[in-house]
Amino acid sequence: MSGKEKMVSEITPMDVDFAQWYTDIVLKAELTDYSGVKGCMVIRPYGYAIWELIQKEMDARFKATGHQNVYMPMFIPESLLEKEKDHVEGFAPEVAWVTEGGAEKLAERLCVRPTSETLFCEHYKSVVHSWRDLPKLYNQWCSVVRWEKTTRPFLRTREFLWQEGHTIHATPEEATEETERMLNVYADFCRDVLCMPVVKGRKTESDKFAGAEATYCIEAMMHDGKALQAGTSHYFGDGFARAFGIQYADKNNTLRYPYQTSWGTTTRLIGGLIMSHGDNDGLVLPPRVAPYQLVIVPIAAHKPGVNEKAAEIKDRLEKAGLRVLLDDSDNSPGWKFAQYEMKGVPLRVEIGPRDIENGQCVIVRRDNREKTFAAFDGLEDTVASLLDAYSDAIYNAALANMEKRTHACLSIDEIKSCIETNGDGFIKAMWCGDEECEKKVKELTGVGSRCIPLAQEHLSDTCVCCGKPADKMVYWAVAY
Amino acid sequence: MSGKEKMVSEITPMDVDFAQWYTDIVLKAELTDYSGVKGCMVIRPYGYAIWELIQKEMDARFKATGHQNVYMPMFIPESLLEKEKDHVEGFAPEVAWVTEGGAEKLAERLCVRPTSETLFCEHYKSVVHSWRDLPKLYNQWCSVVRWEKTTRPFLRTREFLWQEGHTIHATPEEATEETERMLNVYADFCRDVLCMPVVKGRKTESDKFAGAEATYCIEAMMHDGKALQAGTSHYFGDGFARAFGIQYADKNNTLRYPYQTSWGTTTRLIGGLIMSHGDNDGLVLPPRVAPYQLVIVPIAAHKPGVNEKAAEIKDRLEKAGLRVLLDDSDNSPGWKFAQYEMKGVPLRVEIGPRDIENGQCVIVRRDNREKTFAAFDGLEDTVASLLDAYSDAIYNAALANMEKRTHACLSIDEIKSCIETNGDGFIKAMWCGDEECEKKVKELTGVGSRCIPLAQEHLSDTCVCCGKPADKMVYWAVAY
Repeated sequence: MSGKEKMVSEITPMDVDFAQWYTDIVLKAELTDYSGVKGCMVIRPYGYAIWELIQKEMDARFKATGHQNVYMPMFIPESLLEKEKDHVEGFAPEVAWVTEGGAEKLAERLCVRPTSETLFCEHYKSVVHSWRDLPKLYNQWCSVVRWEKTTRPFLRTREFLWQEGHTIHATPEEATEETERMLNVYADFCRDVLCMPVVKGRKTESDKFAGAEATYCIEAMMHDGKALQAGTSHYFGDGFARAFGIQYADKNNTLRYPYQTSWGTTTRLIGGLIMSHGDNDGLVLPPRVAPYQLVIVPIAAHKPGVNEKAAEIKDRLEKAGLRVLLDDSDNSPGWKFAQYEMKGVPLRVEIGPRDIENGQCVIVRRDNREKTFAAFDGLEDTVASLLDAYSDAIYNAALANMEKRTHACLSIDEIKSCIETNGDGFIKAMWCGDEECEKKVKELTGVGSRCIPLAQEHLSDTCVCCGKPADKMVYWAVAY
Repeated sequence: MSGKEKMVSEITPMDVDFAQWYTDIVLKAELTDYSGVKGCMVIRPYGYAIWELIQKEMDARFKATGHQNVYMPMFIPESLLEKEKDHVEGFAPEVAWVTEGGAEKLAERLCVRPTSETLFCEHYKSVVHSWRDLPKLYNQWCSVVRWEKTTRPFLRTREFLWQEGHTIHATPEEATEETERMLNVYADFCRDVLCMPVVKGRKTESDKFAGAEATYCIEAMMHDGKALQAGTSHYFGDGFARAFGIQYADKNNTLRYPYQTSWGTTTRLIGGLIMSHGDNDGLVLPPRVAPYQLVIVPIAAHKPGVNEKAAEIKDRLEKAGLRVLLDDSDNSPGWKFAQYEMKGVPLRVEIGPRDIENGQCVIVRRDNREKTFAAFDGLEDTVASLLDAYSDAIYNAALANMEKRTHACLSIDEIKSCIETNGDGFIKAMWCGDEECEKKVKELTGVGSRCIPLAQEHLSDTCVCCGKPADKMVYWAVAY
């Protein structure tokens, strides 16, 4: 049917206009719809199913590391938000304020949570009294609001869905360990579930979370050479505890301030996987978050036995624990092929009369269109190994993209010419630690500091900007 | 340890002060905490775990009936809320308004969603064009805000968690069928998962959802004789479609208005199960939503082999799919018994040295304290059948409470004396259908119409109020 073929041809090719390619995919793969609320999106069933799978996989990892889910109010009274000075300075300019409720003007403005440190602190003050009450390892799944000026589906929206972990510990060592643990949980999740390689690092002082002593992050590399911050993990020291007056009696009955962390990931991860794996025909989904891991398309479905066989194969594969779609609608096979390529379904299984005669079907991989003739006997195993190979392949392709786009530079001029020659990407360069140099690199080259990677390399002894001694290798990039 | 025993004795007995009993349980079983935001609650890990289990069980039922999850924005522009006249009249007085965002005054006020019909309608208008696009069977899990004056944890809070189903259909028949289907899903869920019997019925005109043609509900009976509306299912006809201009082309290419439904349940269900099953020692949880279905308490744990055996039994029962807590802390067994009775854990498994010698353990049911000596051999089966018996018993106890508190009355005076004699409960009485009579019954007796049950009984030919012909039997009660 030409309808779909037209629809597919409507995707703007990546190299013509990457931003438009992204928007085309988000809308045409039916992940989101625009809403009448500026900067807020409707997440449609196919997009939400991806988020549910992300949640399920991630939540299991949180629980396996001892965390419990809770729910805090969505409103924060202005006076509560103001308790920690750096925190309010960071967030107040971008919050939405509720000023009227039930037809009356409120005595105190309530902000719609942009993040919930202050609410967790208030709760900790109520429930943490003794060393026996520590640690508390909490997480919540909710939506938050930040009044962004420029928005894009998944990448930057005024309201977004996320999880925010908030933990409180007796010692700085435990809290530090937690901060690192969750950074690793995120990085492993990105690798194993999203097939998305990331760089683990620490943010510079100027780029820390408002109120944090240290912010760690994972940074991914998109198809267009821009970096995407995919998750953050913060160490707060006892700053919030002091601001909120949270104290606990230790084993000697001495009052002490506890130490806190928070860490978060958002629906932005969906944007990340689109721009890590997608191509000019649409989405390419990692199997563990694909709403359907394979689609069965009957060929010459009017012939006797074809639809029956397709249904039987669907049942068998579902029993093997796979998420399977059988499209036995009256659309043409060609329409269906394009449709499910657009939607990024990892495998397409074609079953026609001749295949049935031969006791086999045809399986086509979404990423490279590779065709396999697979016997019905043992099909479950064939599919499982094809999905594994597919996962490895898209991970390796994303890793190759990151490596191809990562360059070491020793001077500002080298950075400029590297970008001119290779386009956007990660620039590795030494930095002395001075904020002025950080700013100047950005001004002169357009790339900002993304992180100080945990895996450091020694490129030279001197700062790429001022030439003074430098012991930090920084990843620089243009970022989403 | 006296600490806990003191804590248990602090629960106000039900018959001394039911409201205080409820509050005591909610706080002392650590389901919620107060927050600094008036009328909003913190849902603590134990309370949230119950909600997660409710979500899991209910979501599976939604998906099994063909529904898909989506996510709509949390804000509704004032002009959008106003599109359906009855709807805005019903909700505008109790919404919270965002009037400032990112330090600027908004051109148009945004209300924090009290319910999302208007947002779903806007989206349907964007995606429904042809009969091929119907039906859409959507649901979302989120929080909503209604600016209530008087609030109580779970029962009535300014912000609450819920699910809202929103569906759109080609014909009124299909939409009606959906409305009924979901009412039944709710009723079955309450019976099978929450062990809570409900009456299925239809709301009177005066009690309908704002904008609905018909509202159906399930009503449960609490320990104190008050009714609790536990879920609602609405049929909208084509009213919203006309107000929002949603039309689809049917198979003959004629433009038609589609028909809609919505249906919802909330964290109020947790309040319902507390007041259906709880007793003066605390919570009594239905096994399918109990965060722990059993707790293992080692006895004389310092004796060799006790903790090891307890751990072994925990592993075995977890492998059998049960949610098990092993409390091997240094608190006394007595403290632990009281603690887990307070928390409503269905079964307590005691394992001591003599039990181990005898190849058995002691199992105590939370609801009736019945003790069973259970051999380690086949323990999985013993526990499974004890949980089944426990579920049946608490369901039957709740049903007996409902039946004991349900009385048929033929006149206003009978209603009055029935309430005087028996206390609160359901009054069954005939009604002519006149709103004036409905109001008058409330004024004269204090009980309001809860619903017109689907299972009608013919008590008499005349209205309990005006004496005119009546063909509707109504359940009346004081309600939460």
